[in-house]
Amino acid sequence: MPRFFMPKEEIAPDSFTLSKENAAHLRVLRLKNGDAVTVCDGAGTDYECLIEDGNSGRLSVTCVSPSKSEPQVFASVYMAFAKSDKFEHVIQKATELGASEVVCFPSSRCVSRPDERSLKAKLDRWSKIAASAAGQSGRGVIPQIIALPSYAAALARAASAALAVCFYENEKSLTYCAAISQKPFRTASILTGPEGGFSEEEIRQAAAAGLQICTLGRRILRCETAPLCALSALMYATGEF
Amino acid sequence: MPRFFMPKEEIAPDSFTLSKENAAHLRVLRLKNGDAVTVCDGAGTDYECLIEDGNSGRLSVTCVSPSKSEPQVFASVYMAFAKSDKFEHVIQKATELGASEVVCFPSSRCVSRPDERSLKAKLDRWSKIAASAAGQSGRGVIPQIIALPSYAAALARAASAALAVCFYENEKSLTYCAAISQKPFRTASILTGPEGGFSEEEIRQAAAAGLQICTLGRRILRCETAPLCALSALMYATGEF
Repeated sequence: MPRFFMPKEEIAPDSFTLSKENAAHLRVLRLKNGDAVTVCDGAGTDYECLIEDGNSGRLSVTCVSPSKSEPQVFASVYMAFAKSDKFEHVIQKATELGASEVVCFPSSRCVSRPDERSLKAKLDRWSKIAASAAGQSGRGVIPQIIALPSYAAALARAASAALAVCFYENEKSLTYCAAISQKPFRTASILTGPEGGFSEEEIRQAAAAGLQICTLGRRILRCETAPLCALSALMYATGEF
Repeated sequence: MPRFFMPKEEIAPDSFTLSKENAAHLRVLRLKNGDAVTVCDGAGTDYECLIEDGNSGRLSVTCVSPSKSEPQVFASVYMAFAKSDKFEHVIQKATELGASEVVCFPSSRCVSRPDERSLKAKLDRWSKIAASAAGQSGRGVIPQIIALPSYAAALARAASAALAVCFYENEKSLTYCAAISQKPFRTASILTGPEGGFSEEEIRQAAAAGLQICTLGRRILRCETAPLCALSALMYATGEF
């Protein structure tokens, strides 16, 4: 069924009119009066609607329910600043895979980090990528894209989740599976490094902040592969598929 | 440690000379006589070596052992023909993640499929992508890239693995986890569709060929995301990390 995102404040419980952009999309899809569509508020609520007037985009609501496509676990993907195309790739794929937020932050070996002036425009662009991927994959929530000013801020925020894991290629003993299996959790942070990896000192800081340092296996993953591998495994391990 | 791939037949058990290309790379890395390098035959055997003469690329072998970075399970990624950039992306990432082979094949909704003349050149290019990703991720084996002439051929070949799964977005009941948990396996085939997905008839054919039809969760994954998500989960489920 066609799926549109609308801000919560523009949706009414009985009937409402789609935004101009969405109404135009309705016409492109050649939907007729009486056809069913889903409008999602991007915050986890779905509105099943019938088209009352396809020209104006007027809809009547038939059912309001929590989105059925959101995962059980609130998954936060923490990724050190990487080249823009890699980060955008991770935003798109992490959204499909069910991330609730994607957080970027600086670390010592980042080869690329946006300056404060360009960051605002980049966040706008990144949010649009997340919104588009959320629509295409049928998500009920558009993941928030967040930029943090320091590695310490990323560690402190990541550590507040019930499961908080930092991946390090030199860690050989603690598996991700062991960390996941310790106890039930509803929130998870998975933290991965930039192209050049984390320094030993950064790994010590992550451990001191309360993150578990885990291996992702004996193969070296690229900085854009590691978060998506870890997120896929998290969704699998928490019963999503 | 620097890692080079060489064909098995050019490696001798005591000492041998790197190929011209690898020897040039040795000099780029500014390695000195007496430094240690690993030469891998791309078929699962690692040769720990010392540089005898960095100029010519002459090495002496100190230890021969099975590669330590290969996964327990022989994982075959079957992906319907997709646009070239998507398939190349999957080859690179699946190699990092531990696939043993990547197999492409036609299906009814493929929007893109190479003709026979261009296929030879494409297979060469794809094999190079796999070799490069294998080197960077520290694999002991370069995954084979295989193109099959028909959907039926893909099903027959995929079904010969101990675990053979086809992913379908309209499957709601059988989870991948349930399929994986049924019994131990050493070989696995994971089969995913093109941009437009599989047809219902193709899913019936896959089931008839002996593949289990599984869901990858309630979100719609792009054709290049699904195989990598399934492969990541497979590696997690079989104890790789």
